[in-house]
Amino acid sequence: MSRSIDLAVIPGDGIGQEVVAQGLKVLSAVLPQDVKLQTTEYDLGARRWHATGETLPDAELERLKGHDAILLGAIGDPSVPSGVLERGMLLKLRFAFDHYVNLRPSKLFPNTATPLEGRPDIDFVVVREGTEGPYTGNGGSLRTGTPAEVATEVSVNTAYGVERVVRDAYERAKARPRRKLTLVHKNNVLVHAGHLWKNIFDRVGREYPEVATDYLHVDAATIFFVTQPERFDVIVTDNLFGDILTDLAAAVTGGIGLAASGNINPTGAFPSMFEPVHGSAPDIAGTGKADPTATILSVALMLRHLGLEAEAARVEDAVSADLAERSGSRTTDEIGDALAARVAD
Amino acid sequence: MSRSIDLAVIPGDGIGQEVVAQGLKVLSAVLPQDVKLQTTEYDLGARRWHATGETLPDAELERLKGHDAILLGAIGDPSVPSGVLERGMLLKLRFAFDHYVNLRPSKLFPNTATPLEGRPDIDFVVVREGTEGPYTGNGGSLRTGTPAEVATEVSVNTAYGVERVVRDAYERAKARPRRKLTLVHKNNVLVHAGHLWKNIFDRVGREYPEVATDYLHVDAATIFFVTQPERFDVIVTDNLFGDILTDLAAAVTGGIGLAASGNINPTGAFPSMFEPVHGSAPDIAGTGKADPTATILSVALMLRHLGLEAEAARVEDAVSADLAERSGSRTTDEIGDALAARVAD
Ligand SMILES: CC(C)[C@H](C(=O)O)[C@@H](O)C(=O)O
Ligand SMILES: CC(C)[C@H](C(=O)O)[C@@H](O)C(=O)O
Repeated sequence: MSRSIDLAVIPGDGIGQEVVAQGLKVLSAVLPQDVKLQTTEYDLGARRWHATGETLPDAELERLKGHDAILLGAIGDPSVPSGVLERGMLLKLRFAFDHYVNLRPSKLFPNTATPLEGRPDIDFVVVREGTEGPYTGNGGSLRTGTPAEVATEVSVNTAYGVERVVRDAYERAKARPRRKLTLVHKNNVLVHAGHLWKNIFDRVGREYPEVATDYLHVDAATIFFVTQPERFDVIVTDNLFGDILTDLAAAVTGGIGLAASGNINPTGAFPSMFEPVHGSAPDIAGTGKADPTATILSVALMLRHLGLEAEAARVEDAVSADLAERSGSRTTDEIGDALAARVAD
Repeated sequence: MSRSIDLAVIPGDGIGQEVVAQGLKVLSAVLPQDVKLQTTEYDLGARRWHATGETLPDAELERLKGHDAILLGAIGDPSVPSGVLERGMLLKLRFAFDHYVNLRPSKLFPNTATPLEGRPDIDFVVVREGTEGPYTGNGGSLRTGTPAEVATEVSVNTAYGVERVVRDAYERAKARPRRKLTLVHKNNVLVHAGHLWKNIFDRVGREYPEVATDYLHVDAATIFFVTQPERFDVIVTDNLFGDILTDLAAAVTGGIGLAASGNINPTGAFPSMFEPVHGSAPDIAGTGKADPTATILSVALMLRHLGLEAEAARVEDAVSADLAERSGSRTTDEIGDALAARVAD
């Protein structure tokens, strides 16, 4: 039997190029001999948009569909109006490929900087809904640019969409030692969506008696993220709250240089996409200062998703060991080399 | 000439009762002899709802309208379904009295606990929009409780509503020594509302060349709140982002026991309402553990709003001096007494 991974690679903008190169380096180093890796690079992002006006043409979307997984660096550039690439490419991919589980683990590795006093023991994972909520693009603007303008944004939430992500979160919580799941929403104000989420959370929870549950309003959750982050195990939340909370989570666990994410379609109907939580950081692009660790940890999430659990763990262990010994500053390339060497051992 | 303050008092639920009593104690102690204080208590909140099913009857709303200002403790209780009191009373008041400036200062006082390492120098104020955004109650649920349910929440944003709060924020920034204003939104995803906010922010900004401006996505803002909070001076943002950010701000500046807020109608058409950011904390109600400082600082915001600047400053200075000397634990009452004694000096 021969195995292979047909990977689409979207380096994107700014430091995206640099960190993806290191991700691929580590991926090649960790894969068993019998797994053949084939990569296809897609030129998408600011450069392409400036050259052709295209964000993500349908033909490209169709080709992307054929891959086993997608590795994405970062997209976005100040030269492109805000929203064009985000909505036209990144979110288009998440929605078209039905990435309903946006998985974002947060762990405070040894020897990494945290702004929190006392270095709390942080190890949780956020299951962020990825295909609904305020991210649908629903809404619009009337009398745009006039003193009578009205602009709306519609958060769309369906029982179908909420139940599948809530189930996924319960499964993840059940598989972890602490077996705790916290729903974060704002159901005292966003009562329609909030009650939908809470009702489904409670109902599905009855099928998981071994999982302890908890509810927090999003504002209160941010307090606990900085005062008591060790209380969290698995968190399930909507698309926008998940966006906000995972940046905060990254900030308290060593910064977005370390935060990985997976945009997952658990059914396998479409390729899942793995990307660091950070952006394209044009200010440090080309300086060798970008930390590729978040991308490399995203590669680990990808390996796990593809069934290569042992390899995923090897990458994560390598990062943990590397961070424990890290001192002084190394370039993007040096960090990639060090991690590739560790996983190859 | 004789002066008077006709104050409506809504103690509300849980610790609301206890902290409001201390707020009134300090208020009485700080007021000049010639200012007559008259208070009218309103019985609103969980008890009333259980007894009568009422949240805020129209007749009560009408009576409240006649006061100079409102002092609110906290509302909410686990025995009442989530959203009933929040939407039916608290938000009803904010909307009916057009409290479009929800003012929330954040300052790290000396000798107060912060979870952040290195005790950064934090002194900013959030101007949260209070009458629009995802808080309007717009939206609904279709096929509620079935597998085919769809629930929506509509964020409504108008040029009228955004411009007035943005102007207020520029005025506040202009009056502060650092003269810096940051807009927080998520205009790369919520493009309709985001562009409305950004366009108005930029346009009004041209009338304030002395104010330095800045834009941050809400997710990135949470990172800076914990890694570099000293960068902020005045922040203007929408209703929901403001809710989330001000709880986080409270957490990094000594906790919600110290966070004050004013729901302000700057035109004076309706009474403004002052309340601590914290909730009713039923778990510690009646134990004497509630910190009344947030309410007392809210009284300072009220004094300033009513034109009693010197008295407002006296209360704030008293809190600052008290915190600097605070050690061990004192009861709600003891803290109120200590602050009342200081302002009376
Ligand atoms: C770039 C932006 C559209 C994106 C999001 O809001 O989801 C990013 O912040 C993220 O968290 O992946
Ligand atoms: C209780 C709730 C409705 C309220 C809000 O969301 O505005 C509270 O969190 C606040 O910040 O004053």
